[in-house]
Amino acid sequence: MRRYGGEHKSCEQIIGILRDLEAASQVALVTRVSKEKAETLLRTFEKAEYHSQASCLTLGPSLVVNESLGKVLIVTAGTSDLNVAAEAVVSLNCHGVKAEMLMDVGVSGLQRLLGRLDKFKTARTVIVCAGMEGALPTIIAGLIPQPVIGLPVSVGYGVSMGGKAALQGMLASCAPGLLVVNIDNGYGAAMAALRIIKSSLVSNT
Amino acid sequence: MRRYGGEHKSCEQIIGILRDLEAASQVALVTRVSKEKAETLLRTFEKAEYHSQASCLTLGPSLVVNESLGKVLIVTAGTSDLNVAAEAVVSLNCHGVKAEMLMDVGVSGLQRLLGRLDKFKTARTVIVCAGMEGALPTIIAGLIPQPVIGLPVSVGYGVSMGGKAALQGMLASCAPGLLVVNIDNGYGAAMAALRIIKSSLVSNT
Amino acid sequence: MRRYGGEHKSCEQIIGILRDLEAASQVALVTRVSKEKAETLLRTFEKAEYHSQASCLTLGPSLVVNESLGKVLIVTAGTSDLNVAAEAVVSLNCHGVKAEMLMDVGVSGLQRLLGRLDKFKTARTVIVCAGMEGALPTIIAGLIPQPVIGLPVSVGYGVSMGGKAALQGMLASCAPGLLVVNIDNGYGAAMAALRIIKSSLVSNT
Amino acid sequence: MRRYGGEHKSCEQIIGILRDLEAASQVALVTRVSKEKAETLLRTFEKAEYHSQASCLTLGPSLVVNESLGKVLIVTAGTSDLNVAAEAVVSLNCHGVKAEMLMDVGVSGLQRLLGRLDKFKTARTVIVCAGMEGALPTIIAGLIPQPVIGLPVSVGYGVSMGGKAALQGMLASCAPGLLVVNIDNGYGAAMAALRIIKSSLVSNT
Amino acid sequence: MRRYGGEHKSCEQIIGILRDLEAASQVALVTRVSKEKAETLLRTFEKAEYHSQASCLTLGPSLVVNESLGKVLIVTAGTSDLNVAAEAVVSLNCHGVKAEMLMDVGVSGLQRLLGRLDKFKTARTVIVCAGMEGALPTIIAGLIPQPVIGLPVSVGYGVSMGGKAALQGMLASCAPGLLVVNIDNGYGAAMAALRIIKSSLVSNT
Amino acid sequence: MRRYGGEHKSCEQIIGILRDLEAASQVALVTRVSKEKAETLLRTFEKAEYHSQASCLTLGPSLVVNESLGKVLIVTAGTSDLNVAAEAVVSLNCHGVKAEMLMDVGVSGLQRLLGRLDKFKTARTVIVCAGMEGALPTIIAGLIPQPVIGLPVSVGYGVSMGGKAALQGMLASCAPGLLVVNIDNGYGAAMAALRIIKSSLVSNT
Amino acid sequence: MRRYGGEHKSCEQIIGILRDLEAASQVALVTRVSKEKAETLLRTFEKAEYHSQASCLTLGPSLVVNESLGKVLIVTAGTSDLNVAAEAVVSLNCHGVKAEMLMDVGVSGLQRLLGRLDKFKTARTVIVCAGMEGALPTIIAGLIPQPVIGLPVSVGYGVSMGGKAALQGMLASCAPGLLVVNIDNGYGAAMAALRIIKSSLVSNT
Amino acid sequence: MRRYGGEHKSCEQIIGILRDLEAASQVALVTRVSKEKAETLLRTFEKAEYHSQASCLTLGPSLVVNESLGKVLIVTAGTSDLNVAAEAVVSLNCHGVKAEMLMDVGVSGLQRLLGRLDKFKTARTVIVCAGMEGALPTIIAGLIPQPVIGLPVSVGYGVSMGGKAALQGMLASCAPGLLVVNIDNGYGAAMAALRIIKSSLVSNT
Repeated sequence: MRRYGGEHKSCEQIIGILRDLEAASQVALVTRVSKEKAETLLRTFEKAEYHSQASCLTLGPSLVVNESLGKVLIVTAGTSDLNVAAEAVVSLNCHGVKAEMLMDVGVSGLQRLLGRLDKFKTARTVIVCAGMEGALPTIIAGLIPQPVIGLPVSVGYGVSMGGKAALQGMLASCAPGLLVVNIDNGYGAAMAALRIIKSSLVSNT
Repeated sequence: MRRYGGEHKSCEQIIGILRDLEAASQVALVTRVSKEKAETLLRTFEKAEYHSQASCLTLGPSLVVNESLGKVLIVTAGTSDLNVAAEAVVSLNCHGVKAEMLMDVGVSGLQRLLGRLDKFKTARTVIVCAGMEGALPTIIAGLIPQPVIGLPVSVGYGVSMGGKAALQGMLASCAPGLLVVNIDNGYGAAMAALRIIKSSLVSNT
Repeated sequence: MRRYGGEHKSCEQIIGILRDLEAASQVALVTRVSKEKAETLLRTFEKAEYHSQASCLTLGPSLVVNESLGKVLIVTAGTSDLNVAAEAVVSLNCHGVKAEMLMDVGVSGLQRLLGRLDKFKTARTVIVCAGMEGALPTIIAGLIPQPVIGLPVSVGYGVSMGGKAALQGMLASCAPGLLVVNIDNGYGAAMAALRIIKSSLVSNT
Repeated sequence: MRRYGGEHKSCEQIIGILRDLEAASQVALVTRVSKEKAETLLRTFEKAEYHSQASCLTLGPSLVVNESLGKVLIVTAGTSDLNVAAEAVVSLNCHGVKAEMLMDVGVSGLQRLLGRLDKFKTARTVIVCAGMEGALPTIIAGLIPQPVIGLPVSVGYGVSMGGKAALQGMLASCAPGLLVVNIDNGYGAAMAALRIIKSSLVSNT
Repeated sequence: MRRYGGEHKSCEQIIGILRDLEAASQVALVTRVSKEKAETLLRTFEKAEYHSQASCLTLGPSLVVNESLGKVLIVTAGTSDLNVAAEAVVSLNCHGVKAEMLMDVGVSGLQRLLGRLDKFKTARTVIVCAGMEGALPTIIAGLIPQPVIGLPVSVGYGVSMGGKAALQGMLASCAPGLLVVNIDNGYGAAMAALRIIKSSLVSNT
Repeated sequence: MRRYGGEHKSCEQIIGILRDLEAASQVALVTRVSKEKAETLLRTFEKAEYHSQASCLTLGPSLVVNESLGKVLIVTAGTSDLNVAAEAVVSLNCHGVKAEMLMDVGVSGLQRLLGRLDKFKTARTVIVCAGMEGALPTIIAGLIPQPVIGLPVSVGYGVSMGGKAALQGMLASCAPGLLVVNIDNGYGAAMAALRIIKSSLVSNT
Repeated sequence: MRRYGGEHKSCEQIIGILRDLEAASQVALVTRVSKEKAETLLRTFEKAEYHSQASCLTLGPSLVVNESLGKVLIVTAGTSDLNVAAEAVVSLNCHGVKAEMLMDVGVSGLQRLLGRLDKFKTARTVIVCAGMEGALPTIIAGLIPQPVIGLPVSVGYGVSMGGKAALQGMLASCAPGLLVVNIDNGYGAAMAALRIIKSSLVSNT
Repeated sequence: MRRYGGEHKSCEQIIGILRDLEAASQVALVTRVSKEKAETLLRTFEKAEYHSQASCLTLGPSLVVNESLGKVLIVTAGTSDLNVAAEAVVSLNCHGVKAEMLMDVGVSGLQRLLGRLDKFKTARTVIVCAGMEGALPTIIAGLIPQPVIGLPVSVGYGVSMGGKAALQGMLASCAPGLLVVNIDNGYGAAMAALRIIKSSLVSNT
């Protein structure tokens, strides 16, 4: 599988890249593809698929999810975080990993979160999306023993504009062992989860 | 009552101020007085009292706590926040307001907090001290209807050094109506609580 | 009453939320709704009301203002702060609280402010909007004993762009007990005022 | 096992905490203990051990390293990063996890790193300490498939003072799936590695 | 007159400079001279004078204040700003300009300021020192027509630490025509006032 | 004369303000008026004048320049700074002050500047516009004795984007007595120059 | 040769400048010219050439590349950096210097870089473009002895938005002797390379 | 030659490093060695030399300056920049390169600089140290055609504290081709100059 960021590339550049990967029968994932670019690309590549919530375009032989690898749980506080979460889901699926979403469990209504803790039990790794103050990953890391990846989201205004307050809140967390990736980096959080899941295959000797 | 910040004043300057207030029979509160300065000041003013955890010095006619005004609850996550919390307690007491502390209820161990929610019921206002990611005021403001004043504390290292991450986390909070004061400003949080408590005395007409 | 931020949500997402609240007969408040989104939403919900200066949309059973709760005064320095102030007014009204605006009293013309101090006497709480250097809340907090909530506004250019200078000016204030919320957070300031107003109902025992 | 940060606590406070843990026969780890504090604490707790390079103090029943959990590799670029790396080693050992150090493999001399890639093969997870521009975790994450935890170190001067440049370099990394913790947070990196190692024990159903 | 900053110079370097100026019969002003350095320097230069509140050392033929140039008024909010104000006074005196101080007129007690407005009438230029939120120069510039130089002072803690909040508040000021110099730059404010005072001597043709 | 910032005001709000001033026969200056807004306003106010380079609109009885007040020199490094400089010129003219521009004298070609020093001799005050590193005011303040007002301009990219590097360069200047205003604040620089020019009229007694 | 930045200039201003240079038979280079501006300018100047990837317009007598000066190598990690690299190429060509590009050698795939080290041998100076964490110049400076100019590129999101993380990474580099220019400053990097290349012509006496 | 930063290393660590280099007969340069550390090290290594102004310690076979490589000129504005300049001189000498210092030529007294331009003619490369606003490298790069390396120095207070204003001023420079290194990085500037000087030896084929 090869992945490219589509944000700073022209349609011509992306088409060139996809042609090469198609010729090599590789799965291609292009992230951060706007609706306008996607329309142009879909006209050229009929078999490509555009995941509009994730702003991702995929192309290539379809993958079978490998259930034995275990499941990644992706948690969001509200509808504003869904785009970033969806990028993580698509990225994991492209690598044959099962990803499940748990939505609408923000910190200002703890009861909803506490009522769904059973969802976490079977997850090998948890990705927690959060904007604003970014406290949700801290709370979850205090409740479960698995790896928790904080994924800051650039929603909000004033001091939370751009996601920096959420990022800093996760880095400064008092919950021991919380891991962090760059703001809006759904692909990066997914790749980190993939590394973790596959790490159990490392031989000790 | 008059209050002065002692951090940027010399002992000579503080002595001058205290002499004037003593002559006027006013209660004096000097905040941010180091142990060294306190020793010098106590030699000059035998009746002064040094509150070492709060780094505050008080002088003047003792005040009776006015129970009818109601109680302010001051919450801390751990022993590192105690100094700032103590400054708030001394400041409220100087104005005849009852202040109660609730310690050791950090967000990485939610059970302790959830087990003590009854403590909040009789508080007119709650001051929540927090360093690091500063999530505690957000969690508490999601659980109770009273005014919550977030008081960021300058403990921590890396991105939480100096308390800026905690401050931003409180300002960016997803809990509606969370109020914030400057980092380490125990006196300011106390004065805000005092204004709130006394606001019920405002006549509507 | 339920409130949602409309900035990062699509019309489809907002319509879904409003349908659920309508079915449950709840008052709905959606903040940060652009004119374009509002037009779409008003076509779907005939009974909804769009408050254009506040960029807010409300839907649901109308509320009666409860005069016995007392009044919140919302102060602005000029016409540039009106949008944020209006968001606070609509938010308070949605909770049945009376909100009164006092306009055009900036710090560079102190006389206008000093000439209208009587307006403050019957307010239980005061919200002060200010952009640029954000000095107005400091001046007002030095003149009145009630709770003062500083609400920084993202007007200005150069160092005041985005409202950070105003926010820092309020946090750094030399006026004891000044409270602060996030930049442009009219809803948050209103909810804080609501908490304060209702705090007088807390029983001491 | 319980852990406490010793930086903002007095000796009296630490002694109180250790007495409680000793009474409960729990392993105690106190991080960020200065040499001066350590001397005082060692006089009170004869069985305590001070790890001077890690600035950590441990007390309690000794743990046996559980080899079956696999190994964590801790990589440093030079002697300046050793303190933070040592904190991670002590923290992992306190949880019975084997930790191995690989030193002196900075990015400005790639040959040394490339010559020791075999060291990485048997590691379940890799923690990479780096100050200055913080490029080492990016390079390593491009070379191996396991989880890589970037641990920024506060060495350097000018733009790298305090470790912020290293932190940002790791967050902005072009290597997919690189994970990051707070500056100098050796304990946090260790706890994240522990979560990862133990995640292979999660049942899929 | 020649001036040197003493902060980053050794006593040996300062002695060399003063010897040269003494030989040339020039007035010398060394700013930011610590008490320790001053003691050493005074042993070498018997005729030098150390202004301890201003941390300035002067040496050379005494100057007569030239009353016809007019007066500079230097305003401070409290005792914490006195050091910086004193540096401005000494610097003006070294150039034969009369400088008068007006103390203890902070914005949180407007009455004191409003009661002393007559003091401003005969000032050719006003320097206003302020730390914390730095609102005082804004207020004064709104009340008088003369040039006002805002001089931010590095007192305070949290967001006001180092004087940046005061500096930004002055730059962002809504008072038209407020001028600003670097934090703690008493000498610079004085030299700007000197330029202003002397500008009336410029011929129009 | 009254001035208003037009950036955050709607055409309706500006029309209301202008109507009031017209009725009172006052000169009106509206700064930061876009071309689009200007067209609308000119249709309503036939006698208004739009200064397109300055993005300013003026209305009201024309003023005669009072030559006896002396001249303000406004210096720019290149064509990119002309808009901000023009705002200063219009603002001074609105107060009857003569303003002269000296263009194209950047620091990377010192000869051009040194060849035109005679232009500075008859200026009572000098406003120096500069973007990028903002060194020009420092150089000029080192060459002339009059008041120099540094006016940072938000041109440039990378570290000079938004004008912050120019602003900091002017505040940090090694030229004694350089004064500074907010980025792009042509109006503020003009009002400061006006205060300086009029200060010579202050009586010493 | 004369160069102008076209970003903050109107078409009219650029036309004026080009007319003057054309009259003087000088080579003109205008950087940061948008496609829209270029179309207008090409209609006026038929002999001008627009380099669309570099966003540069050139006009004037064509230059012959002077091979004896040696070659500058310009390295990029991917397609996102090509625009900035192209600006450097055009700028060097305008001065008769040969510039060669080496593309697609990012740090997350070290093999590609290591496989092409021979390309560096004949370069007198190397310009390395990089966005995100900006590690590529550090790696290259560790591998070759020639001057390396790090050119940060404003691609990326979150902490790498605007190119500041890349800039800081290059300044903080552990590779001794790495040189840095402003973000996106392709022209500046080219001019620095030109100075270096020509420095060998300086006589030692 | 090998170089080590001594700031974050203990004497024991430095002694170990020096022993190894001594055994290998290599020249050793340790930068950022405090007076206290130097005394300890000189007791162990009798042949070591401590350069106190540069805070550098050198050990090993003495090098002959190779005049044919040409000369590097190191320019400073005043006595406060001498330490950083001295580190550059020692570093160049360790590599057999001649380094000459030109002192006391700050931008606020242009005449001194313009009077000594002949000094620059025979320099192959120029390193310009500057604190505060950092304008000196910009001025010099506008006057000479050789490579100019801006070396920001961490002197100053307020906005220039820590050298960031100087660094930004150099990066934002309007002088084309100015190169920059990290704040206080005298060693890095020297190594860059060395790369430049040696680049003339690169064969074009």
